[in-house]
Order: sequence, then C-alpha cells, then structure tokens
Amino acid sequence: MPELRRDPIIGRWVIIAKERGKRPSDFVVGDDETKDGFCPLCPGHERTTPPEVLAYGRPVFAPNAGGWSVRVVPNKFPALIIEGDLDKQGEGMYDKMNGIGAHEVIIETPVHDQKIPEMSHDQIRLLLTAYRDRIADLSNDVRFRYIMVFKNFRKAAGASLEHSHSQLIALPVVPYLIQEELTAALRYFEYKDRCVFCDIIRQELSQGVRVVCENDDFISICPFAPRLPFEMWVIPKRHMSSYTFMTDRQFSALAALFLETFKRLDKALPKVPYNFMLHTAPVKTPHLEHYHWHIEIMPKLTTVAGFEWGTGFYINPTPPEESAEFLRKIELP
Amino acid sequence: MPELRRDPIIGRWVIIAKERGKRPSDFVVGDDETKDGFCPLCPGHERTTPPEVLAYGRPVFAPNAGGWSVRVVPNKFPALIIEGDLDKQGEGMYDKMNGIGAHEVIIETPVHDQKIPEMSHDQIRLLLTAYRDRIADLSNDVRFRYIMVFKNFRKAAGASLEHSHSQLIALPVVPYLIQEELTAALRYFEYKDRCVFCDIIRQELSQGVRVVCENDDFISICPFAPRLPFEMWVIPKRHMSSYTFMTDRQFSALAALFLETFKRLDKALPKVPYNFMLHTAPVKTPHLEHYHWHIEIMPKLTTVAGFEWGTGFYINPTPPEESAEFLRKIELP
Repeated sequence: MPELRRDPIIGRWVIIAKERGKRPSDFVVGDDETKDGFCPLCPGHERTTPPEVLAYGRPVFAPNAGGWSVRVVPNKFPALIIEGDLDKQGEGMYDKMNGIGAHEVIIETPVHDQKIPEMSHDQIRLLLTAYRDRIADLSNDVRFRYIMVFKNFRKAAGASLEHSHSQLIALPVVPYLIQEELTAALRYFEYKDRCVFCDIIRQELSQGVRVVCENDDFISICPFAPRLPFEMWVIPKRHMSSYTFMTDRQFSALAALFLETFKRLDKALPKVPYNFMLHTAPVKTPHLEHYHWHIEIMPKLTTVAGFEWGTGFYINPTPPEESAEFLRKIELP
Repeated sequence: MPELRRDPIIGRWVIIAKERGKRPSDFVVGDDETKDGFCPLCPGHERTTPPEVLAYGRPVFAPNAGGWSVRVVPNKFPALIIEGDLDKQGEGMYDKMNGIGAHEVIIETPVHDQKIPEMSHDQIRLLLTAYRDRIADLSNDVRFRYIMVFKNFRKAAGASLEHSHSQLIALPVVPYLIQEELTAALRYFEYKDRCVFCDIIRQELSQGVRVVCENDDFISICPFAPRLPFEMWVIPKRHMSSYTFMTDRQFSALAALFLETFKRLDKALPKVPYNFMLHTAPVKTPHLEHYHWHIEIMPKLTTVAGFEWGTGFYINPTPPEESAEFLRKIELP
C-alpha cells in the first residue's frame, strides 16, 4: 500500500509509493525517447490494459473492444490504490495515511502517432468532455478531495508511453499548490469582492499584449509573471469555478480554442516537450466565487535548477509579451 | 534591465531576464554533458571573470592572481543587476520592479575536475566559510531581503560549467517557497512554543531510521516526507536561525558532516546530478526563534513531471527509511 506523508513544516503531502521501492541500482539514466514497439494503448490491445472506465465513439455497446475514439482506463502502475480506508494516523510529530486514490489514463485517440495539433475538432471535444465526465464521476467518491487532470508530453516532460494520453489522479487531500492558489484567490476576493482571474481576463483583453488567441467564450494568454518561456493559460472568459460545470455546448468553443493554442505552440516550437494541468475547484466545494478553472500549459525549454527548486523563484529569459506576439503572429492554414 | 514580476494570484515573484530575450529559435535541445575546453574558472584565467569579490588561501595580497583555494566572482551573465533602484510600480492590477540583485559564482576549488567528495576537509571548510562571508557582506546592502546559496551539479541539474562551483543570488524580495516555510514554521511555533526543526531533530535522533550520519553538532537525515528519492537535509543540532551566526569553530564540524554526506551519496549513486540549497533566515530578520537554517540536497533521479509541477504533490518511489539505511551502511575508507 502506498503511503501519504505530510511534511511537518510546510504541510505538503507526498506519495511514498513503497511497492515501487527503488534502490539506488534501480535508477538508470534514461534514454531520450519513449520506448517503441508494442503499444498497450492502441486499438486491438484493449485486453492488455485494466478494464476501461469510459469509452466514447464506439457505435455499439462492447466494453474493451475496438471502435472507440477516446478511452479511459485505470493506470496499470498506479501511484495510489483505489480500494481501502484512509486510516489516518500520527507517527510522533508526523502525519500519514494510506495512499488511497484513483490513477487513470485517458487515451486521447485511437491513432498511435496522432498528436494534439493533428486531431480533429471533434476528437478534441470528446477528449475535453471525457475529462469532465471522469472528474464528475470520481467526485461521487466521498474519500476524494481533489481531482487533477494533467498531461506529460514526451519523455523530457515525464511521459513513459508514446501514444497520446493524459492522466487523472484523484486524491484524498487538496494538493499544496492548489491550496495555496485557493487561499490567495480568496484573500483577493475578500479585499476586492471580485475574482482575481476575472480581473486578469479583463486587463488582458484591454492590454492585448499577452493574448495568444481567443473566441467568444475562452481566451489563451501568456501570463504576466510566467515561470517558464512560452507558459500559457487557457481560461473561460465568464466566471466558472469548476470544470464539471462545463456544458456540452461550451465544449465546442473550448475545443476550438484549445486546438488553436496547441497548433500555435507546435508551429512555434515543433515537438517541444510540455506539461499541462487542469486547475479546478476542489471536489467538496465546486461553487466558489473566488476561483476560476483554467488550464496551465508549461513547455519544457529550460532546465529547472536548484535556484528555482529551492526558492519557488523562477528566472525566465522570455518576456510573455514577446512569446504571445510570436504565437499570435503565426499563420495557421 | 531585468524585471521582477509578481504573479497576481499566488504572489510568487519571477525574474523576467529581458536582455537574454529568447525567441523560439534560441531554444536548442541541449547535449547531455557540459561543454569542455577553455575553463574561465581555472587558475591562470582569473582575468576572464569579472573582478573577484572574495578569495581565500592566497599567500599574499594579489587580487585576481592565482594561488587561491576558494574564489568568488560576480556571474558574467547575471540574472539580476547590482546597480540601480528598485523603482517599484504597478501595471494595472500587476506589480513589478527592476531586477536589482547580486548573482555570484563561488569557485569551490582551483582543481578543474575535483568534485565535492574528493575535496579535503580543509577545502570544504573554506568553501562553507565563504558562503557565510558572502551572505554577511551582502546583508549590508539595504535593498536585499534574501540571499540564497545553491549548487547545480551536472547538466541535468542545471549546471552550465564543469568546474566545481556554487552560486549565490541576493534578492530584493523573500522568495515564495522560503516565505511559505517561514510562515508555516511560525504557525508551529505559535502553537507549540518550539521550533519545528528542533522537534524534527529530536524525533529523528530518537527513531534513528532516517539518520544518514551525525556528529556532535550536525545531523544529515532523509526527511519524513521527501519530494525525491534520496533527498537529504543537513541541519545544525542546536537552534540557529541564520547561517551568518556560524562561528569558525563550528565550520570544522559542519565541513566533516557535509563531506561525509556527499561521500555517501557519491558511493550510493556515483555522479548523480543534484541540486543543493541553503535555507537561512531572511536578511532583515536573522534572529528567529521559529526558524532553523539547513541545507536541502535534491538528487535528480526521476523526471519531475506535470503532476508534481501542477500540484506541488510529489510521487516518490523510495521511502526515506530505505535510502537512509542504504546511505548509512556504506563503508567509507
């Protein structure tokens, strides 16, 4: 059973995945590309994954068969275990609990080498809808407090499989940085009586210099104080705290902007490794006046070193106004 | 002039190093080893660095000549500029100021390919003393609020030069993660009337399972909730909030433990890339009952991916009890 442990100073929880128990000899300096060969995520190999929890696009009811467009399965090597009790306890001054949670893989496409910028609008719409549906479903489990959807693209950004996929982790605690963001956004709201993200959108629309692209409902910006070169946020223009409130109609507009954002990134920096993370309200408090869901896209262009690590203080060589202008001026077919 | 910008939500400052202004074409996927050839940090090349701010071990007074054991110079490509005013200002809802600060390189040894585990006790003692002396000197500059010493070892951990060196950055703000640590430690102190680090040391000494090595004055542990495999902290056993309070006598004991810690790490994981960061009290408040200086050592064995990034929630495959036992049992000559 993995264990959740809390740092006694800063309150940050970590997962100690005991089963994976790595000794020094297990750490091999990895190669630069993900391994090729047999792909467990490809159509026809459905039986090599744990049984699916969701599939879209299959014309008939036939779980774990082919014919799907988007498919979600439990991670075969989960960081957290779905079955069991939390069994919270102390160890002297320290706090720990069992590593209970869900860890799922969202297979974004049946086509092995299709990347996000190459997908159709409809495919992206299904993918973004699957995120919502899995978050909504797992929110019914009383043990979970936070559900995070994220993607690691390419080995340098942490991917271990080449076939396009995202991941989801449901957690019995609200993670450290999300809690910080929530607390800070609440402080702003208490002072101004306005959502800080709504204020950001207003200023970005009026200044224009950090806007990458937009449509009626969504906007992509390079944020004012980005940690990394070409960092981008995708945000709904109207206040919405939880991604689970997204309606089917809204997914069409989100898919259009999401796809355009990744097409621009791919043209600017072909094949750049990146991570994206969906920030949404915690499970138990979906309705928040002070919080606003958004997607943070973090291209991996520079090495994050000791200084950034130790301080949370990032040195970014690219002003967001420059990266936004560059991305904005790209001509898309 | 570089610019300091504050994230309007979470309050995190970042440096936008405009001069370095990188466009997409400037980001080349790097090779895996640091470049060899001419070394600006080697003896005989003193004139290729900016004029030194400190040198130990030179038998006669001869600035920027050879014969030194430890030498400190301004970074030739600084992230922050030493001259100028902060000129704090707003831009709508956003906050920014000029990127004023110091960025120095601490050349740890005159021997080009000598790494920390190969250095003498006396060399390490001089190095650790140089950290204190530079922090103490820069603390006299009224513009600075925090001074961070850190080291990136090997390219994968962010090093761009092979010759053993550490770095120092003096900042006009207290960085985000340090501020979080200070706030959390104060909260603990207000509740318990004890320093949380002193409590950790007491529990680690009584449990013993996470201790790597110790002497009368210092201890190295694998912390209870480590973010990464083989993370280690070096901590003074008796309460001391600022590294500037270290006396010459104490540096001998610190050097012994520091050297032993890195010898054990190097035997366990030869040539592993790592970062270490010296956490100490802010410049304006060196005397704190609730804070305790320490060095955090972070080996780079796993890829930090989107999930960790987006949440501050780390998945660590190695329990600290296992890594501490492994490191403890290593036989040193």
